[in-house]
Amino acid sequence: MTFNLPTDHLLLGSCDYPEHVPQDRWAPYAAQQRALGLSYVRLAEFAWSRLEPAPGQYEWAWLDEAVETSAAQGLKVVLCTPTATPPAWLVRAHPEMLAYDAQGRVREFGSRRHYDFASPVYREHSRRITRALAERYGQHPAVAGWQTDNEFGCHATSRSYGGASAGRFPEWLREKYGTLDALNDAWGNVFWSMEYSDWAQVRPPNLTVTEPNPSHLLDYARFASGLIAEFQAEQVTLLRELSPGRFITHNFMIFESGFDHYEVARGLDFASWDNYPTGMLEFFAPPGVNEALKTRYARTGHPDLVGFNHDLYRGVVGRGVWAVGKDSTPQPTAHSPQPGFWVMEQQCGPVNWAPYNALPAPGATALWTAQAWAHGADTVSYFRWRAATMAQEVMHSGLLRHDETPSPGHAEVGALDQTQFPLGPVPAKVALLHDYESLWLYDAQPHAAGLSYWAQTVTYYSALRSLGADVAVVHADADLSGYAVVVAPAVTLVGPERAARWAAAMEGGAHLVCGPRTAFRTPGGGTWEGGQFGPLSDLLGARLSLYDSLRPGLTQGVSGLGASFEAHTWAESYRPLGAQVLATYAGGPLNGEAAVIRRGQATVIGAHSEALIGAVLAEVLTTAGVPVTPLPEGVRLSRRAGQVLVQNWNPEPTEWNGRMLPPVSFQVLPEADHA
Amino acid sequence: MTFNLPTDHLLLGSCDYPEHVPQDRWAPYAAQQRALGLSYVRLAEFAWSRLEPAPGQYEWAWLDEAVETSAAQGLKVVLCTPTATPPAWLVRAHPEMLAYDAQGRVREFGSRRHYDFASPVYREHSRRITRALAERYGQHPAVAGWQTDNEFGCHATSRSYGGASAGRFPEWLREKYGTLDALNDAWGNVFWSMEYSDWAQVRPPNLTVTEPNPSHLLDYARFASGLIAEFQAEQVTLLRELSPGRFITHNFMIFESGFDHYEVARGLDFASWDNYPTGMLEFFAPPGVNEALKTRYARTGHPDLVGFNHDLYRGVVGRGVWAVGKDSTPQPTAHSPQPGFWVMEQQCGPVNWAPYNALPAPGATALWTAQAWAHGADTVSYFRWRAATMAQEVMHSGLLRHDETPSPGHAEVGALDQTQFPLGPVPAKVALLHDYESLWLYDAQPHAAGLSYWAQTVTYYSALRSLGADVAVVHADADLSGYAVVVAPAVTLVGPERAARWAAAMEGGAHLVCGPRTAFRTPGGGTWEGGQFGPLSDLLGARLSLYDSLRPGLTQGVSGLGASFEAHTWAESYRPLGAQVLATYAGGPLNGEAAVIRRGQATVIGAHSEALIGAVLAEVLTTAGVPVTPLPEGVRLSRRAGQVLVQNWNPEPTEWNGRMLPPVSFQVLPEADHA
Amino acid sequence: MTFNLPTDHLLLGSCDYPEHVPQDRWAPYAAQQRALGLSYVRLAEFAWSRLEPAPGQYEWAWLDEAVETSAAQGLKVVLCTPTATPPAWLVRAHPEMLAYDAQGRVREFGSRRHYDFASPVYREHSRRITRALAERYGQHPAVAGWQTDNEFGCHATSRSYGGASAGRFPEWLREKYGTLDALNDAWGNVFWSMEYSDWAQVRPPNLTVTEPNPSHLLDYARFASGLIAEFQAEQVTLLRELSPGRFITHNFMIFESGFDHYEVARGLDFASWDNYPTGMLEFFAPPGVNEALKTRYARTGHPDLVGFNHDLYRGVVGRGVWAVGKDSTPQPTAHSPQPGFWVMEQQCGPVNWAPYNALPAPGATALWTAQAWAHGADTVSYFRWRAATMAQEVMHSGLLRHDETPSPGHAEVGALDQTQFPLGPVPAKVALLHDYESLWLYDAQPHAAGLSYWAQTVTYYSALRSLGADVAVVHADADLSGYAVVVAPAVTLVGPERAARWAAAMEGGAHLVCGPRTAFRTPGGGTWEGGQFGPLSDLLGARLSLYDSLRPGLTQGVSGLGASFEAHTWAESYRPLGAQVLATYAGGPLNGEAAVIRRGQATVIGAHSEALIGAVLAEVLTTAGVPVTPLPEGVRLSRRAGQVLVQNWNPEPTEWNGRMLPPVSFQVLPEADHA
Ligand SMILES: [Zn+2]
Ligand SMILES: [Zn+2]
Ligand SMILES: [Zn+2]
Repeated sequence: MTFNLPTDHLLLGSCDYPEHVPQDRWAPYAAQQRALGLSYVRLAEFAWSRLEPAPGQYEWAWLDEAVETSAAQGLKVVLCTPTATPPAWLVRAHPEMLAYDAQGRVREFGSRRHYDFASPVYREHSRRITRALAERYGQHPAVAGWQTDNEFGCHATSRSYGGASAGRFPEWLREKYGTLDALNDAWGNVFWSMEYSDWAQVRPPNLTVTEPNPSHLLDYARFASGLIAEFQAEQVTLLRELSPGRFITHNFMIFESGFDHYEVARGLDFASWDNYPTGMLEFFAPPGVNEALKTRYARTGHPDLVGFNHDLYRGVVGRGVWAVGKDSTPQPTAHSPQPGFWVMEQQCGPVNWAPYNALPAPGATALWTAQAWAHGADTVSYFRWRAATMAQEVMHSGLLRHDETPSPGHAEVGALDQTQFPLGPVPAKVALLHDYESLWLYDAQPHAAGLSYWAQTVTYYSALRSLGADVAVVHADADLSGYAVVVAPAVTLVGPERAARWAAAMEGGAHLVCGPRTAFRTPGGGTWEGGQFGPLSDLLGARLSLYDSLRPGLTQGVSGLGASFEAHTWAESYRPLGAQVLATYAGGPLNGEAAVIRRGQATVIGAHSEALIGAVLAEVLTTAGVPVTPLPEGVRLSRRAGQVLVQNWNPEPTEWNGRMLPPVSFQVLPEADHA
Repeated sequence: MTFNLPTDHLLLGSCDYPEHVPQDRWAPYAAQQRALGLSYVRLAEFAWSRLEPAPGQYEWAWLDEAVETSAAQGLKVVLCTPTATPPAWLVRAHPEMLAYDAQGRVREFGSRRHYDFASPVYREHSRRITRALAERYGQHPAVAGWQTDNEFGCHATSRSYGGASAGRFPEWLREKYGTLDALNDAWGNVFWSMEYSDWAQVRPPNLTVTEPNPSHLLDYARFASGLIAEFQAEQVTLLRELSPGRFITHNFMIFESGFDHYEVARGLDFASWDNYPTGMLEFFAPPGVNEALKTRYARTGHPDLVGFNHDLYRGVVGRGVWAVGKDSTPQPTAHSPQPGFWVMEQQCGPVNWAPYNALPAPGATALWTAQAWAHGADTVSYFRWRAATMAQEVMHSGLLRHDETPSPGHAEVGALDQTQFPLGPVPAKVALLHDYESLWLYDAQPHAAGLSYWAQTVTYYSALRSLGADVAVVHADADLSGYAVVVAPAVTLVGPERAARWAAAMEGGAHLVCGPRTAFRTPGGGTWEGGQFGPLSDLLGARLSLYDSLRPGLTQGVSGLGASFEAHTWAESYRPLGAQVLATYAGGPLNGEAAVIRRGQATVIGAHSEALIGAVLAEVLTTAGVPVTPLPEGVRLSRRAGQVLVQNWNPEPTEWNGRMLPPVSFQVLPEADHA
Repeated sequence: MTFNLPTDHLLLGSCDYPEHVPQDRWAPYAAQQRALGLSYVRLAEFAWSRLEPAPGQYEWAWLDEAVETSAAQGLKVVLCTPTATPPAWLVRAHPEMLAYDAQGRVREFGSRRHYDFASPVYREHSRRITRALAERYGQHPAVAGWQTDNEFGCHATSRSYGGASAGRFPEWLREKYGTLDALNDAWGNVFWSMEYSDWAQVRPPNLTVTEPNPSHLLDYARFASGLIAEFQAEQVTLLRELSPGRFITHNFMIFESGFDHYEVARGLDFASWDNYPTGMLEFFAPPGVNEALKTRYARTGHPDLVGFNHDLYRGVVGRGVWAVGKDSTPQPTAHSPQPGFWVMEQQCGPVNWAPYNALPAPGATALWTAQAWAHGADTVSYFRWRAATMAQEVMHSGLLRHDETPSPGHAEVGALDQTQFPLGPVPAKVALLHDYESLWLYDAQPHAAGLSYWAQTVTYYSALRSLGADVAVVHADADLSGYAVVVAPAVTLVGPERAARWAAAMEGGAHLVCGPRTAFRTPGGGTWEGGQFGPLSDLLGARLSLYDSLRPGLTQGVSGLGASFEAHTWAESYRPLGAQVLATYAGGPLNGEAAVIRRGQATVIGAHSEALIGAVLAEVLTTAGVPVTPLPEGVRLSRRAGQVLVQNWNPEPTEWNGRMLPPVSFQVLPEADHA
């Protein structure tokens, strides 16, 4: 494959929109990009109305020129299918292509992502513009690869609650279940007489008088996820045919929950994601991230929220999903020995979409870039080249300011030594299991307002990172061979196959640590007739006793591992049936019941307590031979390709390991030096 | 009447859903229920789709079997009309039966309570399924009685703002007012030119540009309440005809405000209600119950919120409503000398529907049962037998857990000595007046965000309970003979008849205590031309001077009764015209004005101050010869049938009357010993 | 002109609704009004259904009688066009006249303001009823003038998002832009492919998937504002023709933002506004007014929130707008030497529409009246004569209570010596620039949740008032001659003409002080290609460097003017290109950058810090020769006609200038005495 830049280190790029500026700026911009050390430029992301201003009337000249201008500077181009922004002429000709929100309202033209994935007419036009673009540029020597659409799911667009989606849902159910009896049985529709006697009776699960059946929600989420996968696959098929040898990726969003990323990433060469650390903390932080933490990290974002997304997207195309018998094989990118990932949009100044949009700390753009590399990124592409002077994102920053002067982020990018960041594998010995179906079920019935699937998952992730461990976020059905420790923080849906897979990993020597609610739910969306832990009961040697939902101010003591802890928000207890009890509840309605249990190499933590989780994980990692390095607040280590990246995310200098780390800074050290 | 179990003590039951579990569980469950000491089982609550899976195709076999299985164990059955969950085939055939929410959206199929009470086609099917069920089981020897529908008003379903209800509202108005002039006059429609010139111009009071006319709201509430009464009456008529000798009840909801419970309860044998103390505190607590209180009582609920609902539902079928000339007579249940009530659904573990759903404290299930008895319950029926393994309530507890093992609540129920709880009257000497029309008017224009009708009413109730008094909550138009003290905390609507009835009670020797806003509003929804207290002005010997709405942090001093007090949220002052002044305001814009006034045996408290209210009530109770026993926080006394129930709702041991009460505990003592 | 009362001092009036009370009250009320010292009575505000109970059937008798009754007491009458409340017969005959809210719902009949300004049929009826009323009363000797409609924009009624408005918007755009290319270019629609290829494709900017284009919002705001102006102009034309010699005004609302008041006020003789100080503080206070401040001033409102509205409405008809070439000339009222204003509705007791509605402090009604005079009011008219006994405003106070006894406000009005309040000019030497287009753009993209256009503007206003300065709020394009200091707190939209006008003012000797975001946006709604300060860059001698959005708890130090300051919420820095740096940022990402700059007599303050703003303004005022009198919290000075009004808004006595000011009090002193 020749389209990629051969390299042994991290490459950089930026997102540019030549159509937003006068043409006399194009050549200088390309030259400046090259001078800054950028290798890639992403083009045409939302340019449908410029590429096809009227039905079937294509205008290629400007994009020809833009591509050539970039190529002339030696830049490689990432082209986008512009399908996130269907033009007005298409929408007004086919208003039935619009989606409905959960309140039953049509989601109108006038911004972006205004389409229903199920709309046949929209899909036809999506294929048409993709084909036209791919025919025009698919084999252009400067074109390195493709981004499909933009940020699936952003602005709650994963699901439409009417129109085309509503019309197709019954068909999907019929294909899945075959008979109405099977559907009614799987959903438990006997409860509240929700049984259907005709496929056409089924609607999306919105506007119900009170909450809908979680099984209804779960299947609607699966259905909608499948539509996105199907939509993208149509583009991928065309791009594979018309643009051979180029990579195909999609830029996923921070903590996006509306679809199964493993399913949608299938068929891509690698995943990309859009990394906005400060906005993420302000806007997307899960419950449990309090105001004090948001203020402390306002200028950098939180290292573990960012790191989690890196480790997640590194794994969505990879052995995680391919190892479980899905119908494709991974296609490693040219310059990475394993399926890596890109940061397609990297914040390099303030964002514009959070309630508050702080200036990043000096050093933050460099730190974010280094962290992305250490977590496995092969390319980091900054958003955007120049701050827009019009429309919705006028307050958003870029590498150039509105007046074309370089921003502080520009200076930090220019100062980076890219050779400091060699490519190579991330040596994670800890797998953190993740599963969108568990997420949907968990969040459908959180039972305690202060927790969510992401909140619980990130708590375990953060505990691991605080211990200096590298983590691979992998699908709950992934091949787990090679991991010393497997952590399932919130995998509430566990069926027999998944249970068998985990058991096999343990037979292979892995230690397993489960959080509360593990294996509480069935694939149908109910609970096991035999109760939690369902098919894991023998492995874990216990059953659920009680779960407690703790409002702020209400806590539950825990004693064990030689210490005392305080659980908040959630506490569940177990009846050991073979397991030993490592910690018990002290006081309250759970007094004396088991809080942490272990059978063999499997441990379950029932209490939500950061300190307890950290203590148990430290003990398990040590036993499993994974080095434990307790880190101060805000200090993080990440390893890649024989190097270790030492990071200080604190706004003040922080002592670590005998040296003083400057605020918001990093160092790349040979791993051997560090131990 | 032979259908009830002859008894002289409290009986227990549970709510079971055999259709939710495999048939091989039915017989063991029934045997276990009997072994636990249960006498009743409630069946078929939401089973319409199983009873009639297709139009007119009835399936009785399974319910026959379920009833027989229960009967074989000596259990008596309470059957439910399944009309809260019309099946999909009915809804899709007649979508016009669906209700509209206040935002103008159709409330869709997919959960429960998806119907408009005014829908003729739905009403026809409600009668049909009720008749079919009553014909099948109405005279079955095991069938003790009937529950109509389920929890009228739950999920804000009392009122539909479109469709059938909107269509019928103008007719209802025409019947009530006769002429448009009368309507316009009653509502004061001249204000803002809202006068109607055709009946068809009138809509429900939603989606108006700014707030609608409170008179419009008031009549819409009355109209909707009447529809519910009419709907239920159709079922009652059929059940009376086809199931002679069986009781008919309905399970009302916690603090439900959407209809007049006195009107809807008419025709029932007794009221039931669904008692979920922890969810009530977390979700239904009126404004004024602060976070600290919610945390303190998170595992028991608050004694007075629960007690108030008991005392309210004990009174909705009873002399309260029958004594004022309504068209029926009470039908005492077989085993109670006075119209008592049931707790049809009693929490016995965590609920699933509040933001946080704490585990009840050890002892809470037993305490709740004992309290229910002491407040007049004849039967307490636990919800539910086994925790559901499917659908919306999968997180809700039962007497059995998901895995069929007994829950802590099960153990507490099993340990109860039912003979400790003899039946007999509740000897309340204090009547607390309650009126849904006042509630609607108060909450239409609260004027101070921190107060509401329930909040003000419960403040007075709680003050009385803190003084050790038993309280009867009775309709504001009830026969008040026999009560030593009558308290009207928030009866803002007082017309001449009501005023005369209160005056008569005072002539009969009762003391009257009124809270702020008493007699401020007219039956039409306006205020009196002559100002507050309208028709009570002579009796109370004063008129309103000023009312003050106090934001958090703004308070108003009060001096009187030998002490100083601090009012918050609300303060109103009076111009005495014959009354004496017991307390005056000190400082602020009300400085020197009357805060508490008295004429003869009538006292009015204008300031919202828990301490002041307690002081005035203590003084009035003492004068009226009602024993006053000031109780520590969390300790409560309730008397029934010669016994006194001493309760400690605190999470810690509490000293009272020389003895140490264990946390969350009760004792039944002969009343003579206590005094 | 003979219709006005010749006077040299403030006059008083009240708003009365004879149609709300029995006719036998009319004569006594009129007599009492006169006895209280009132000169004006406002009638018929919402009386359409009484004036025209059926289509074309006018009923004048009652209003004839009401006018005569007032006239008989020597009162002058202000009549209202009743168009804020179209009657049911009109709405039901023409439902297409109703407006749509931003959620896409029809805004229903049942309260007030239920119409779309663009509706042709509604407009026709508005002209018809206006003509009929004007023909009947236009030349009645007691009729002094007219109020059009009531409170344009109240209840978010400035814009309709469907129906007639949606239909007309494309036409408006075509008239403005001529070609779609021009529209697409002006809005920057290339961003996100939002380009239109047909005028009919354009909708209102609501229900978009994510935020709409700010240029789209800006033009929709302009369009809607123009509709209101057009609507009112039709009434004004008729009234001028049929009621010669009478004044025409409109009663504007507190901080109303939905339309350009300068545009809508054009053609009026003077502006009026409705002054409810306590409700304003509780309900309309901009972000930044914290809870402690709301509690402190709960019984008076905040002096500067009230004062700002006075100074704003004094200026909306005046040289501000007329001086810039608009198509009319001001028509001074008979009794004022300059275009003054009226307080058409003055609070005189508690309001009913805020979450909390406190009783005003004793003295507050008098203080509000005095302040209104000192800020330029010629007449203050109390709302309302008697508290309503029916409908939506039953909880609102009046000069008479519900029972017709005089309220505390009545007593305060009666005690006023009107001759203490001579008419004459307000001698403001400081102009504060205001611009609705800047407001719309600012609030479309606030970027920091704690700020808004009003919040930033009022911060500067309050700083000026704290320094004892009198302020004229004038349009950003006003003739600025005669002002010593011109302050542009938040004029974010600055085009070349505006820039030139400001430069001219400075050439004329004025000092200019700009707040952050000044000249950041273009008239099209984007930012300047050359960046902030666009056309002001040379004048100010700098360009924007960075802006920072500071969440609560995050602050930014500033050093300069011999002191240290702390910025919160917003901080922007500049690159000086000729300007000198008066203060620099200390610490954080802006460390060392310019926070306050000056070139010549122009100063820019980039940091949001009350103390810094106060310090800079004090320095500039002093330099400019405007006397500075630092005032204690809650004390204010306002000058008019040679007098100075010393006000104490504090709830406690406050020492000032060697004397002790009683709480909530005022004194009128000859300005000379005060110095
Ligand atoms: Zn993007
Ligand atoms: Zn129920
Ligand atoms: Zn008005």
